[in-house]
Amino acid sequence: MENNNIIYGKNAVLELLKNEKRSINKLVISKGLNRDNKIDEIVNLSKAKGVMFQFVPKEKFLQYKGINHQGVIAYVAPIEYVELDDFLSKEGKSDYKKIIILDGVEDPHNLGSIIRTAVCAGFDAVIISQHRSTLCSATVEKTSAGAINYIDIIKVNSLVNAVELLKKSDFWVIAAEADGKDNYFEVDYTGMNFAIVMGAEHSGVSRTLKKQADFLVKIPMFNEFNSLNVSNATSILIYEATRQIMQKSTFKI
Amino acid sequence: MENNNIIYGKNAVLELLKNEKRSINKLVISKGLNRDNKIDEIVNLSKAKGVMFQFVPKEKFLQYKGINHQGVIAYVAPIEYVELDDFLSKEGKSDYKKIIILDGVEDPHNLGSIIRTAVCAGFDAVIISQHRSTLCSATVEKTSAGAINYIDIIKVNSLVNAVELLKKSDFWVIAAEADGKDNYFEVDYTGMNFAIVMGAEHSGVSRTLKKQADFLVKIPMFNEFNSLNVSNATSILIYEATRQIMQKSTFKI
Repeated sequence: MENNNIIYGKNAVLELLKNEKRSINKLVISKGLNRDNKIDEIVNLSKAKGVMFQFVPKEKFLQYKGINHQGVIAYVAPIEYVELDDFLSKEGKSDYKKIIILDGVEDPHNLGSIIRTAVCAGFDAVIISQHRSTLCSATVEKTSAGAINYIDIIKVNSLVNAVELLKKSDFWVIAAEADGKDNYFEVDYTGMNFAIVMGAEHSGVSRTLKKQADFLVKIPMFNEFNSLNVSNATSILIYEATRQIMQKSTFKI
Repeated sequence: MENNNIIYGKNAVLELLKNEKRSINKLVISKGLNRDNKIDEIVNLSKAKGVMFQFVPKEKFLQYKGINHQGVIAYVAPIEYVELDDFLSKEGKSDYKKIIILDGVEDPHNLGSIIRTAVCAGFDAVIISQHRSTLCSATVEKTSAGAINYIDIIKVNSLVNAVELLKKSDFWVIAAEADGKDNYFEVDYTGMNFAIVMGAEHSGVSRTLKKQADFLVKIPMFNEFNSLNVSNATSILIYEATRQIMQKSTFKI
């Protein structure tokens, strides 16, 4: 448990909810608690702002017995998440926007490591799911070697809605899939906004997202062996797109 | 500490040293020990077989106080390492042999993850340094998702000698380096045996190995940001070589 990522106590959590600049990953409230005005306000504000909250058995708070949490704890992100709308309405880092969408990556080390590669390659954003992903914590920040502060991290309620919006906003969607039709290097990543969708280590990209995708690509395997680590797989796709863009712009000259 | 990776006690360690099939990462002997015939035999056998051994203060054994180690502990590898000579004299997996050389990768998770990618791409071997690398442990095996059993892992005393031998054996050597002259995708990996040398996360490839290399390549960076995680960087190079080989063989048809 990362204690530099929690804020506790009714007043502190209320202040946090009123502070536009801090991003909350999740809020937990003890089930045994007497509902007073402050708790009601916390619940109402959370609903209004779309902050995920859960009532949990008070035993869950035993690990925090040294602190005066009053039955309310918020897990905060070390960064401010960016809204997809805001991201879409601003300028990209280069001619076209490049995004990674993570569908169910649960290991914070993988998330950190993917963000690091995305930053190195000059990608514009990483989109994660509020419900199906590990969120940005101190561990993610550390594994990313600080890269988390150099890219837009967009946390959404529904990846399906996010992809729908991206497609309407002139993005091509490429999903990585073990049974993909083309090899990942047979798709042309140049001259377009694109989003690469990577799935969870075990279950892959969800069926709905695969249906939405414009391309399903695979990384070829030369062994009767299970798949790549998701952060390595993502790095391979990120830099293949980068290679194509760099080589194409060289040919132009 | 991984207890499934240790063998302890004078007789057990002697048996281990006489067993050709088990690979020993390191042997530690307590400094306070009375030198008897068995200890002498252990030391002599270790020297004869090139097994690294160390005399350490007996306090180092306190963590093992529950077991009857008699002041002698061997750390064994979950696999049998392959000798470079043996590797060179046998058939490769495809027309040309493809190798990864790791110069100072100390994180077992990175080693495991690199082995996993190398296996997925059908590479022939991973070479590690006895002195400048984490060795194959249970953690490496687990992080590799078992891949460690599907590829030759070669542990050498001197990477410089190993690279020298590889060059004499018709291998091209490509070292990754932040200040490399060419981008990693501007080198032709096809139609030749090659070894890709990757350095430690902080210090990179050692100076001598860089001098030995035929090519110094860089992964282009689009941010004033520190480098990629070494397992991601290695994956990017491994699959760029794979892409070139696959696309070249397609063109032939």
